[in-house]
Amino acid sequence: MPKTTFEKLKEKVLEIEHISSAIGLLDWDTNVYMPPKSSAFRGQTLATLSALVHEKFLDKNFEKLLMVLKKDFDDNKLPEDQRVFVREIYRTFKKEKKLPSEFVKELSQAVSEGHHLWVEARKTNDFNLFAPQLSKIVDLKRQQARYIGYAASPYDVLLDDFEPGLTSEQASAIFYELKKFLVPFIQKIVGKNKNFDQSLLSGKFDPTKQKELMHIVAAKLGYDLEAGRIDETAHPFMSGMNPYDTRVTTHYLEDNFYFAFGSTVHEVGHALYEQGLLPEHFGTPLGTSVSLGIHESQSRLWENLVGKRLAFWKYFFPVVQEYFPEKYNKGNVDDFYQALNQVQPSLIRIKSDEVTYNMHIIIRFEIEKELIEGSIDVRDLPIIWNSKHKEYLNIDVPNDAQGVLQDVHWSSGLFGYFPTYTLGNLYSAQFFQQAKKEIVNLDELFEKGQFLPLREWLRKAIHQHGKLYTAAELCQKVTGEALNSKYYTQYLEEKFGQLYKL
Amino acid sequence: MPKTTFEKLKEKVLEIEHISSAIGLLDWDTNVYMPPKSSAFRGQTLATLSALVHEKFLDKNFEKLLMVLKKDFDDNKLPEDQRVFVREIYRTFKKEKKLPSEFVKELSQAVSEGHHLWVEARKTNDFNLFAPQLSKIVDLKRQQARYIGYAASPYDVLLDDFEPGLTSEQASAIFYELKKFLVPFIQKIVGKNKNFDQSLLSGKFDPTKQKELMHIVAAKLGYDLEAGRIDETAHPFMSGMNPYDTRVTTHYLEDNFYFAFGSTVHEVGHALYEQGLLPEHFGTPLGTSVSLGIHESQSRLWENLVGKRLAFWKYFFPVVQEYFPEKYNKGNVDDFYQALNQVQPSLIRIKSDEVTYNMHIIIRFEIEKELIEGSIDVRDLPIIWNSKHKEYLNIDVPNDAQGVLQDVHWSSGLFGYFPTYTLGNLYSAQFFQQAKKEIVNLDELFEKGQFLPLREWLRKAIHQHGKLYTAAELCQKVTGEALNSKYYTQYLEEKFGQLYKL
Repeated sequence: MPKTTFEKLKEKVLEIEHISSAIGLLDWDTNVYMPPKSSAFRGQTLATLSALVHEKFLDKNFEKLLMVLKKDFDDNKLPEDQRVFVREIYRTFKKEKKLPSEFVKELSQAVSEGHHLWVEARKTNDFNLFAPQLSKIVDLKRQQARYIGYAASPYDVLLDDFEPGLTSEQASAIFYELKKFLVPFIQKIVGKNKNFDQSLLSGKFDPTKQKELMHIVAAKLGYDLEAGRIDETAHPFMSGMNPYDTRVTTHYLEDNFYFAFGSTVHEVGHALYEQGLLPEHFGTPLGTSVSLGIHESQSRLWENLVGKRLAFWKYFFPVVQEYFPEKYNKGNVDDFYQALNQVQPSLIRIKSDEVTYNMHIIIRFEIEKELIEGSIDVRDLPIIWNSKHKEYLNIDVPNDAQGVLQDVHWSSGLFGYFPTYTLGNLYSAQFFQQAKKEIVNLDELFEKGQFLPLREWLRKAIHQHGKLYTAAELCQKVTGEALNSKYYTQYLEEKFGQLYKL
Repeated sequence: MPKTTFEKLKEKVLEIEHISSAIGLLDWDTNVYMPPKSSAFRGQTLATLSALVHEKFLDKNFEKLLMVLKKDFDDNKLPEDQRVFVREIYRTFKKEKKLPSEFVKELSQAVSEGHHLWVEARKTNDFNLFAPQLSKIVDLKRQQARYIGYAASPYDVLLDDFEPGLTSEQASAIFYELKKFLVPFIQKIVGKNKNFDQSLLSGKFDPTKQKELMHIVAAKLGYDLEAGRIDETAHPFMSGMNPYDTRVTTHYLEDNFYFAFGSTVHEVGHALYEQGLLPEHFGTPLGTSVSLGIHESQSRLWENLVGKRLAFWKYFFPVVQEYFPEKYNKGNVDDFYQALNQVQPSLIRIKSDEVTYNMHIIIRFEIEKELIEGSIDVRDLPIIWNSKHKEYLNIDVPNDAQGVLQDVHWSSGLFGYFPTYTLGNLYSAQFFQQAKKEIVNLDELFEKGQFLPLREWLRKAIHQHGKLYTAAELCQKVTGEALNSKYYTQYLEEKFGQLYKL
């Protein structure tokens, strides 16, 4: 039987996805095992494969097949799985086609140079070293928005790359609501002047033991180590190459085992999503995660709502005691739980607590939106950065290295990425609220070390669908409501209200 | 300035080479760190990238550029670096073009299935399980030879993939000479009935300590660990992705540290070649090794001529004593050297000693040549295998798992590969003889732990040239003579004559 148009296009899409899988491995290796001298060559290999992906999308034959199916799509003649396929592939194709190859190359070079200068600028605490290149990157990102086209704001275009369908206006409204709650809430907590004993988190923790413990924790949460692995890197990340190869990394600090613990649980949360995608849909939209916001909802649900929960620690504290008896044999789970949940406005996003974290994101969102819309200038970033930290968190930023230069994202051209972190927090609370309704006695299960019921619930409700639904549709379907910050603020109020006796 | 035809073609070749680099990493990862469940997906990713390479070679534009340069080549109008480039790229292109994509796919599937059946057959000691698929693979390899075309023997075509320019007739002559020497030489040694104390090689060796030692040895031989790394796999190998990323693997046995030691020195020998190629020629023939035979000459030179030499151990035995004092503090280097160089006809090629090793290769060469020429049948392989072992090595083969099924090569379609192992031995002796002439007091340098002079000599004489010379030209240039077995047989006679007092 001759192949159908759909089958032919799917073959071409799978080819692209296998190239992307190879890119995934090259990226993973770059961060984990690549010999240091190889970085320039590696950059060229990655650039070559990325260009190939662009080339494959723009192939005339690819376009012809896609256009035939797009017509069927518009005429409502496709079965549902093909509808989703064509909807998503066309979405990507349209963007790829609008970007001239020369522009893609220019952006990629600017970003590569930008990353390099950012590393230097952060090291030497010299924003001016980075500023001209950042201006160039911002200009190129604005140019990208013009190529793609937009109605309201150029920032919409960039946001759409990470959170398809979400507009700046919607994001602004959500973050505005959240800020209105968070700023006074944080002040209230800080006003209590309550310090949980942070020395409970520090000590001396053998990395080999930590590593063993992390493998046990990951497996306990339902991470399939036969289809993944845990390695060590400076900055933890998750890399999903296919449903049977989804790797996480962590970082072992000798004086604080919780850094590795928390980051492992976070990355395993991401990995469980990838491992929950259906292998038969590999490489197609039905086998791909919905958006970064939904992805982050999974990592943050496990890291925070589960992993910083008393019931979770009722099970894991005795395990940790077994691994580090000198430190914890005399401790108790309640003190440990409190120490873990100390709220304290601080300078560095990735080290901040569950509550103030979102203010870091809101600050970045407000700034990058205005940058892309052209209402503020790169030169003024440090002043704006510092004044927002003072205003929202009552924090003085001592220098740019610990201020506006702390994150890698802008140097890599990732504008529109930050909001997905807080969207993830909002989604995570809304999903978790639903999970608690549908799974009987969830906390009792956690106390007994039973985490698979939650993983199964997430698989059924979210993972297995791939991109069948958009983020908005999925949220509606799973929780019966559109995304809103109510569940998240309720969660914070309840948890930290108890902890801080507000 | 507009790009020249040469520059345009070079860009396209580099694109292919970067895809090949990615394939290299995928292969490495498959053997080292890939989660077990991912193997089917990995196979598809590899197949996709391999097909891309074929596609890029057959691209019309590629051919057009190449043909313009080929004409200049034929008219003797190219500078030397471009001559080599066009000579080699055209050589590969011609072959790729002659093989229909359908055939490439069929062979790749047959080989993948063949490998799978071979694993099963070896496990269950059942040659018949593997035989039909092996017949199919042999047929396809014969078909490949017909597609490419040949004058004397279809085996010439296959040999040319691994040892460009070498014909079956030349190989037969070389191996015939060698066999005439080896068979009686081995009989003479065996007749001495001399057993060096093999217990000196066994004991209990902490793998962590072995690992540390291997890194020290590798660095001492001049392997740049900033441009490479040492990992552990079941079967050691070297993977050269670019001159700044050339990795080796080894395998630590708890009861015998020399397995890891010898295999590390062997793979480091390969890696030194890759690290000695000039980075500015990456991806072009001038930055690529000459042939498998020349590659193997480097690994075997370091593993055997250097690594099983008394002068080498005068330096390294005290180092080993430091690492494993319980075992070696009372030992002495002479006994250790003898134990290392025990000659004993045995069943398994990869475990055999320096002298009998070549008989294993000669047996395989004789058999595979006749298989491809069609004068013997796959069904009769076990009988032929066993009778040759009896005739040449006076060994009884107890079963096919330890006999004809022991090697992976045929199941992977690698006919014409085995001879390069022994060619490597012959080249290694001829090169080493020259090195000893040109480097003053080489053995004294070794005794002092100075191995860089030899590495530098090899770089200058061999590595840095890439494919500037063919194997035959290189041998002539370096040693003043064509390849011949004289130096190798002299080396064996001298070394083992002393050891066995022949």
